[in-house]
Amino acid sequence: MLHPLFYPRAVAVIGSAAEGKIGHTLISQLVEGGFSNVFAVNPKSQGVGTVPGFESVSVIGSPVDLAVIASPASTVSAILEDCGKAGVKAAIVITAGFSETGNIDGEIELKAIADRYKIRFAGPNCAGIINNHHNLSLTLETVPPLGKTALVSQSGALGGLILSWAEEQGLGFSKFISYGNAADINETDLLEYLINDSETEVVALYVESVKDGRRFYEVASRLTKTKPLVVIKSGRTESGRRAAQSHTGSMAGSDAVFDSVLLDCGAMRVYNVEEMFDLCKGLTSLPPLKGKRLAVVTNSGGPGVMAADHAESIGLDLAEPGKRLREKLSVFLPPQCALKNPIDLTVEGTEEGYRKALMAVLEEYDAAVAVYVGTPSLASGPIAAGVCQVAMDTEKPVVPTFMAGNTVTEALKRFKECGLPNYATGERAVSVLAKMAEYENGKQKEAALLKYDGPVTGLPARGQLLEPEAMTLLKENDLPVPRFLFALNPDDAVGAAAEIGYPVVMKVVSPDILHKSEYGGVIINIMGAKEVEAAFEKIEDGAAGKDFRGVVIYPMIKDAREVILGLYRDPQFGPVVAFGMGGIYTEIIGDIALRLAPLTQKRAAGMIREIKTLPLLEGMRGQKAVNFDLLERMLVSFSLLPFKYPDITEMDLNPVFLKEDDIFVGDVRIIRA
Amino acid sequence: MLHPLFYPRAVAVIGSAAEGKIGHTLISQLVEGGFSNVFAVNPKSQGVGTVPGFESVSVIGSPVDLAVIASPASTVSAILEDCGKAGVKAAIVITAGFSETGNIDGEIELKAIADRYKIRFAGPNCAGIINNHHNLSLTLETVPPLGKTALVSQSGALGGLILSWAEEQGLGFSKFISYGNAADINETDLLEYLINDSETEVVALYVESVKDGRRFYEVASRLTKTKPLVVIKSGRTESGRRAAQSHTGSMAGSDAVFDSVLLDCGAMRVYNVEEMFDLCKGLTSLPPLKGKRLAVVTNSGGPGVMAADHAESIGLDLAEPGKRLREKLSVFLPPQCALKNPIDLTVEGTEEGYRKALMAVLEEYDAAVAVYVGTPSLASGPIAAGVCQVAMDTEKPVVPTFMAGNTVTEALKRFKECGLPNYATGERAVSVLAKMAEYENGKQKEAALLKYDGPVTGLPARGQLLEPEAMTLLKENDLPVPRFLFALNPDDAVGAAAEIGYPVVMKVVSPDILHKSEYGGVIINIMGAKEVEAAFEKIEDGAAGKDFRGVVIYPMIKDAREVILGLYRDPQFGPVVAFGMGGIYTEIIGDIALRLAPLTQKRAAGMIREIKTLPLLEGMRGQKAVNFDLLERMLVSFSLLPFKYPDITEMDLNPVFLKEDDIFVGDVRIIRA
Repeated sequence: MLHPLFYPRAVAVIGSAAEGKIGHTLISQLVEGGFSNVFAVNPKSQGVGTVPGFESVSVIGSPVDLAVIASPASTVSAILEDCGKAGVKAAIVITAGFSETGNIDGEIELKAIADRYKIRFAGPNCAGIINNHHNLSLTLETVPPLGKTALVSQSGALGGLILSWAEEQGLGFSKFISYGNAADINETDLLEYLINDSETEVVALYVESVKDGRRFYEVASRLTKTKPLVVIKSGRTESGRRAAQSHTGSMAGSDAVFDSVLLDCGAMRVYNVEEMFDLCKGLTSLPPLKGKRLAVVTNSGGPGVMAADHAESIGLDLAEPGKRLREKLSVFLPPQCALKNPIDLTVEGTEEGYRKALMAVLEEYDAAVAVYVGTPSLASGPIAAGVCQVAMDTEKPVVPTFMAGNTVTEALKRFKECGLPNYATGERAVSVLAKMAEYENGKQKEAALLKYDGPVTGLPARGQLLEPEAMTLLKENDLPVPRFLFALNPDDAVGAAAEIGYPVVMKVVSPDILHKSEYGGVIINIMGAKEVEAAFEKIEDGAAGKDFRGVVIYPMIKDAREVILGLYRDPQFGPVVAFGMGGIYTEIIGDIALRLAPLTQKRAAGMIREIKTLPLLEGMRGQKAVNFDLLERMLVSFSLLPFKYPDITEMDLNPVFLKEDDIFVGDVRIIRA
Repeated sequence: MLHPLFYPRAVAVIGSAAEGKIGHTLISQLVEGGFSNVFAVNPKSQGVGTVPGFESVSVIGSPVDLAVIASPASTVSAILEDCGKAGVKAAIVITAGFSETGNIDGEIELKAIADRYKIRFAGPNCAGIINNHHNLSLTLETVPPLGKTALVSQSGALGGLILSWAEEQGLGFSKFISYGNAADINETDLLEYLINDSETEVVALYVESVKDGRRFYEVASRLTKTKPLVVIKSGRTESGRRAAQSHTGSMAGSDAVFDSVLLDCGAMRVYNVEEMFDLCKGLTSLPPLKGKRLAVVTNSGGPGVMAADHAESIGLDLAEPGKRLREKLSVFLPPQCALKNPIDLTVEGTEEGYRKALMAVLEEYDAAVAVYVGTPSLASGPIAAGVCQVAMDTEKPVVPTFMAGNTVTEALKRFKECGLPNYATGERAVSVLAKMAEYENGKQKEAALLKYDGPVTGLPARGQLLEPEAMTLLKENDLPVPRFLFALNPDDAVGAAAEIGYPVVMKVVSPDILHKSEYGGVIINIMGAKEVEAAFEKIEDGAAGKDFRGVVIYPMIKDAREVILGLYRDPQFGPVVAFGMGGIYTEIIGDIALRLAPLTQKRAAGMIREIKTLPLLEGMRGQKAVNFDLLERMLVSFSLLPFKYPDITEMDLNPVFLKEDDIFVGDVRIIRA
């Protein structure tokens, strides 16, 4: 339970209470916040003002819920031990000098002590917490305006930056917590706590990595059913990742996996702090956006067009107004106004014009952006009042973009009063709306991962699996493997080919050869016995000097579309399934969909529909669609393998052949631990 | 010559001079600006203060360089005529109600009058001009701070927005002009004028469309050799485009062509006004960025990593510091600092730390970003002073990102004093640097388009060209066409196939059939006489009811890579060449390069290297590269065709077969006017 962390009835601050020191500042903030059960703890038993000083927590003599520790690193474990003995329930370890500087043992010790006494703690190496609606500030960071967004930050500095920028950006916060090295409380614990926090409507999270990817996934999925989760995940690229390692000593996993996890669990990823502010402002102050149809109402062509351009490029629907709406608008708008989308009121856009136009478009559209370019000579206040009126009279998002700063100060004041977020540009406003639509849409997704509860076994052979062994394993696990036969010599091969039926494909079998084509180890379209013999000889020659075991023979599959199924274990998230279109284009374009395994058929379906080259599967130029049901079911079976066979570390089915009503594994590679 | 527009010795303002009217405001601004030769012109001969009033320009009696016209639309042509008689050299027609509202004839008349009297004019329907270094403001828009950026805007409202935001955004301007409907002076005239304007170092342009795409291309290319050109082009997407049409009555051409033109002529496209401000600030106040190696120096892990992430994702090189630099840094930085890139000075980053670290990294890197997260308790001024010092002592860009607003006011003041632009986030700072690197790189490009001065002829046949006719035309124009023969009947076909050599391909010839495959009109891999006869019969059957002319026979080309060459006429830019990889992937992924025709071999080479699927041509998995020289030369020959044959409106070579040392047109389609 993290409750005592945010709602302590008594707090001890451990560390120097001398003026200018952290302890002194935190104690002063507690007193200012109206807390009375506050205790200073330091070797000199020095108090601060009316707050009494003690040598240790255990000598205070009355119950303490929360200990805030800012004393030197070498003292922290003894202090935590003392706190445990005194019945402390939660702690914040601000002190640095643990795993982030290589002192891993020190951090393990803290965790062990805390576990022994059932203390939950944030840190070490963290910036503290704020519970804003209860005047609790246990951090040196700026206290932001009151609001409905909770900020959870792995980086204290980044958290501090957001808090100190909050007033200027116009976003209020309910809670803030910097969890530092996450020796005990981590990002997922906090997300879980915030699910039921009635003061929080939106959660903003800054992470570089997560401790337990699967639990993060589960909790984030649950959270997003009722509260939007906005995530900045850094360490995206190669240099970013390296810096993230040196920053918190944590191991950042593959960014692409993280990205697909966020998408799949309904969280919204943003890429910088300004985007985070924009989105949180929208989410906390606008009604939900149910749909993608957006109208732009403007007094100025240029900015209106730019907003529309951007909206369309990020997937919103800027359909033209229908006949009924055009008729309605034409009744009260001057004739020179463009009754298109954007609806251009021209410079003559008035309070009444904006109000009536917005009300009218919201009957047909799901949201509206009100773009207004001010001129020094025009009063923007009344026009803003019109926009506010519409926002109150409808349950759809109405988003003002009144520009620029100084020419519309009156309007900005009005918006602040009526709680509407104003955006600096139309592009920023529509970016927020696109994310809001994405959030509503994401609520439809499955929350929990399928649990694998089948048997767990070892792989059937030692060492690298040969192709026939791997194919047999696939077959036993309901994966669609074409008929195949293994042959040790040319005579057997001829018999096998005849049994399978010409034309056939012949491939080398050797534990030494991973990339068969490079050794001439794959011969296709073999038409008869003579060719089989020649092919066998050629393959055997190609494998000269290698451990040649024979050949495997398949029917030749023609005119099929090809896809790739992959599987690997991510250090943060565990088994991940990859799906993409076959061929070298996938490699170049990087058009691949990822999901945590195991998959349900619904998840598999979503994954297949995510790739850009989907039209190839749906059928182009008169070609029929592939059988999606077969492909989805194959993905589901495939996604169970890493759980049944813990020895499998990586696996590729490449290619998988798709015919209109059939599906076959074309080749397989299993990498074992 | 546009000189009198910006540097008039005498100005007449035509339109009501009553208080509150435009004429009155402009005259007052002229007087405030220190201009003495100012005249008010209106039916009542009303003056403003010491400025005398006249009934018409011609009765003023002393020379007038510039007339500013803000009188009703119906009066403008007579006024312009009068101005012409009085020897006026330039005019600004603010008055609206011309082509943008359908009054095209009125606009044509203005242009005719101006041409007759050799008056150059801006507008109609424009917002006026500012010549900021000379206190000349002939617009109702806000006068921005002084600076080195000239703003040219097709939209008056967008221009006004930028000007009114300029002070807050910290960007100064040299000149501003809104050219409205561009009946005479257009964006290109203004770019050309600004090439030699000594008060302008950077040009910012807002356009929805250009009047003469090729001239725009030529002039922009010349401009960017010495001055950066930053462009917002709106009307990008379908809804944007429609609004652009209704906005200025202009026809926006394909956005992809515009985009490739900007890239090719060394201009920098940005997508919103904030990006424009960011980039112009960087370009006017930082030294040129010669290279892509960027170091990030920070006092805070999170924001540093985020800047590095973004920098890498947009193509900057965030290489780790070399051994020498690490040694150097380790001498004066505390041991806990990360000697990686980002270089993390930790919260203990001091003035000296930043100064020394920045100086040291700039010996190895091309630019540095100084990220600093302020806390309320630390003085940011001295640290900013250190950064300014480095900026002065080096000729490389040093870009501060001091965050956030209120916690670093001291620093922001310092940066303003020393002329360094501070960015709100590291992501914005590195975006600017990436564009600056792109600009320096673009200077290497060819400026002028090749001029076609060969013969101009009609197409050789009437109506739609049949495939053999089209192939013959290609051959005559040095395009690599494989050997082919035309056959009227099965017997001829057998002879032709034998002559070409088996295997062959046979295709239908019919003016009624554009998509041959749909009618079974293409049969490949024909191995002998019997097959030829059968194929002929099948093709003739497929063409039943059509005008069947015979078949054309080619050698079968195997194991080739396929590309597409296309050609079409853009309404703004004329003939455009398209190049892409063959197959349906190109359609789905949209991986295509565009260039204005005709091409030089250098341009063709650049175009080929632009596509994402280039690795396929360079050779993957042991495959050799194609012969790029042959492909480039083919593109050059191809690009001349629209000039030699004005009747060609569109053309596709799809596919073109590429072998390691050969190249062949696989199929051709020519659309004639």
